[in-house]
Amino acid sequence: MIGLAGAGAIGAAAAGVVGSQVFDRPDPAQASDPGAAVPFYGAHQAGIVTPAQDRLHFVAFDVITDNRDALVELLQKWTAAAARMTAGKDAGAIGAVNGAPEAAPDDTGEALGLPPSGLTLTIGFGPTLFRDAQGKDRFGIAAKRPAALADLPKFAKDALKPEISGGDICVQACAHDPQIAVHAVRNLARIGFGVVSVRWSQLGFGRTSSTSRNQQTARNLFGFKDGTANLKAEDTKLLEDQLWVQPGDGEEWMAGGSYMVTRKIRMLIETWDRTSLSEQEAIVGRNKGEGAPLSGAKEFDEPVFSAVGTDGQPAIAADAHVRLAHHEVNDGARLLRRGYNFVDGSDGLGRLAAGLFFIAYQRDPRKQFVPIQTRLSRQDALNEYIRHESSGLFACPPGISAADDYWGRGLFT
Amino acid sequence: MIGLAGAGAIGAAAAGVVGSQVFDRPDPAQASDPGAAVPFYGAHQAGIVTPAQDRLHFVAFDVITDNRDALVELLQKWTAAAARMTAGKDAGAIGAVNGAPEAAPDDTGEALGLPPSGLTLTIGFGPTLFRDAQGKDRFGIAAKRPAALADLPKFAKDALKPEISGGDICVQACAHDPQIAVHAVRNLARIGFGVVSVRWSQLGFGRTSSTSRNQQTARNLFGFKDGTANLKAEDTKLLEDQLWVQPGDGEEWMAGGSYMVTRKIRMLIETWDRTSLSEQEAIVGRNKGEGAPLSGAKEFDEPVFSAVGTDGQPAIAADAHVRLAHHEVNDGARLLRRGYNFVDGSDGLGRLAAGLFFIAYQRDPRKQFVPIQTRLSRQDALNEYIRHESSGLFACPPGISAADDYWGRGLFT
Repeated sequence: MIGLAGAGAIGAAAAGVVGSQVFDRPDPAQASDPGAAVPFYGAHQAGIVTPAQDRLHFVAFDVITDNRDALVELLQKWTAAAARMTAGKDAGAIGAVNGAPEAAPDDTGEALGLPPSGLTLTIGFGPTLFRDAQGKDRFGIAAKRPAALADLPKFAKDALKPEISGGDICVQACAHDPQIAVHAVRNLARIGFGVVSVRWSQLGFGRTSSTSRNQQTARNLFGFKDGTANLKAEDTKLLEDQLWVQPGDGEEWMAGGSYMVTRKIRMLIETWDRTSLSEQEAIVGRNKGEGAPLSGAKEFDEPVFSAVGTDGQPAIAADAHVRLAHHEVNDGARLLRRGYNFVDGSDGLGRLAAGLFFIAYQRDPRKQFVPIQTRLSRQDALNEYIRHESSGLFACPPGISAADDYWGRGLFT
Repeated sequence: MIGLAGAGAIGAAAAGVVGSQVFDRPDPAQASDPGAAVPFYGAHQAGIVTPAQDRLHFVAFDVITDNRDALVELLQKWTAAAARMTAGKDAGAIGAVNGAPEAAPDDTGEALGLPPSGLTLTIGFGPTLFRDAQGKDRFGIAAKRPAALADLPKFAKDALKPEISGGDICVQACAHDPQIAVHAVRNLARIGFGVVSVRWSQLGFGRTSSTSRNQQTARNLFGFKDGTANLKAEDTKLLEDQLWVQPGDGEEWMAGGSYMVTRKIRMLIETWDRTSLSEQEAIVGRNKGEGAPLSGAKEFDEPVFSAVGTDGQPAIAADAHVRLAHHEVNDGARLLRRGYNFVDGSDGLGRLAAGLFFIAYQRDPRKQFVPIQTRLSRQDALNEYIRHESSGLFACPPGISAADDYWGRGLFT
């Protein structure tokens, strides 16, 4: 009964309804590893340092009401449903209260019989929630907008599509089973009917960044290991410095939270696939098989940017991705990346519409993502093979620690 | 070394190159179950009665040359690469022959280190391969077009998009890991550069039809069990009658093959989610939790269409999906379905672009899919909640049984 103690207080519709057709999924405590549940409550939201699950369904919502109370009520309902779903239960009963079948089900049913599968649901608030495109403070929270949630600048070569960028609220659903991640997003959208509508959503697979030293590094669709130098859950001191908003950083409601940047990065894989191996490796700055920096021999060897090859040239080129993205050349700035590969079918030009859905968490984007991406967008040799098609920026509040807490309470009280 | 004996005869580029950077994936014989390999050679193609894997990447190609020899050579190269990849090896070395790095890699690399994951690759030939849209017999095979590969009629309520329908050649890639399925399709596209281009492609998850009695029935995005009454691998006699083209059926090169119909079925899940449980169950003709027909109590109870409820009405309504799709009302015609759920992001109207990518195999679509779909398209109560957006029809040749055989040899010799 994880997380249900306070459910009665926040609307029976989304909570632990007793009816004739409640088909809760198997007890997470009895599930084997990839099926097991990840705790929902805690000092930080799950889904950030949680070892990256294999699948993603990311959704950005527009809030379609100006009614603050309706938004708060939705956040309360969502919190209760998220607590249920991450514990492997349904969003609500698939039948109605007391078994009356003449109501729409409180759960859509496609996850019945499936284990929790490591589901995490991570919420973030976009700049437009604080003040919309017309400058209106719809919900009376403009004064609480953190300075760190400053609109991202336009970067060189940006090719952003507004219809798949931004959003008032986002939810990152990660799980080991895509049916579980899709079920969660779909039920949050269902619960939000009339208050929010889906602005854009993205499925991903094959996590491309480890977030724990216990995970093997995965490969992106360029065929290279990605995220070798990522911030990891075990880097406790670095996480305080680079990932989690600290007391005194600004808006106190964000202490223990983190800022999320998303970028949908289309990869021109057909062009890449006709590039020689040596060129690919020079562009990335690592070799393809082992993933070692070109200055070293093993994946986790630290790159030595001063190293020189037998030809007298730098072993890692001046415009190599690994150099320009590295904290050594970015005043120590790091990111916790949590991206996923995607294929969205074909692009109508005979090519796969494939790439990387980049997600990065950080303490302050002004000091981390923005300067790093400014450098990359101007100089990175990879730019010839990629195109940034969408962008998102969200303030992810801290975790919630009691059953009467809810997503965003610090912002709305 | 499965399937490599004849590789030297059909082009080193796609075969077992010896170089300095060959990173074959783990031996399938040592892999645990969901990682294990499915045999590539056999009387029938794998990926039809193979227990449905969890993930799909489906691709339809246009052939962009009129050169028959180039097409045959591609089919040979593809066969060699498919044999390698389904055995858990790369399409070719990631380095070039003899380790020279100044060539594009023969494998794109993103599956390095991953097990075979049950990968199957199943090829089919569309009507336009035999005679293109201008009526031209580009490859001298028009006379070999089977009568059963007759263009599908336009069905009531079809809302097909030509750009994601049809195709000269399709490949269905199924695996337990989407990265493996995507890798396979991407490498076939890479090998086909200059001969084929990607017309459309579709990712899917959460197989919605069991093809073996050893599999649990999965759920579609309406939340209902799907495929309970599917043809299954164990139905040997029925498979001969309903699935596999028999000698004497027509074109002999198709004996042992099967015809594939694909339909991308958008589901209006937001509308469905606001429908009452009893209405949902009446439309489907089964209950949601157990999946039992409304005339019975258990999932595998045979539906009794003459059964009457306490209100004197038929237990299974006249327009219920399960009734109209059932072989009892379709002159015994059955299908082996192998569909997948999909979510393609959002539709720009605040909704998830979600649905079912329907795949069905059969001995003769004129006697199976066409009459069944004619009935469904006119009467099915589900039609209010679905929209057929793409359609495909392909002749899938028999399996290949020797290492010098190749996909489509019977058609081209």
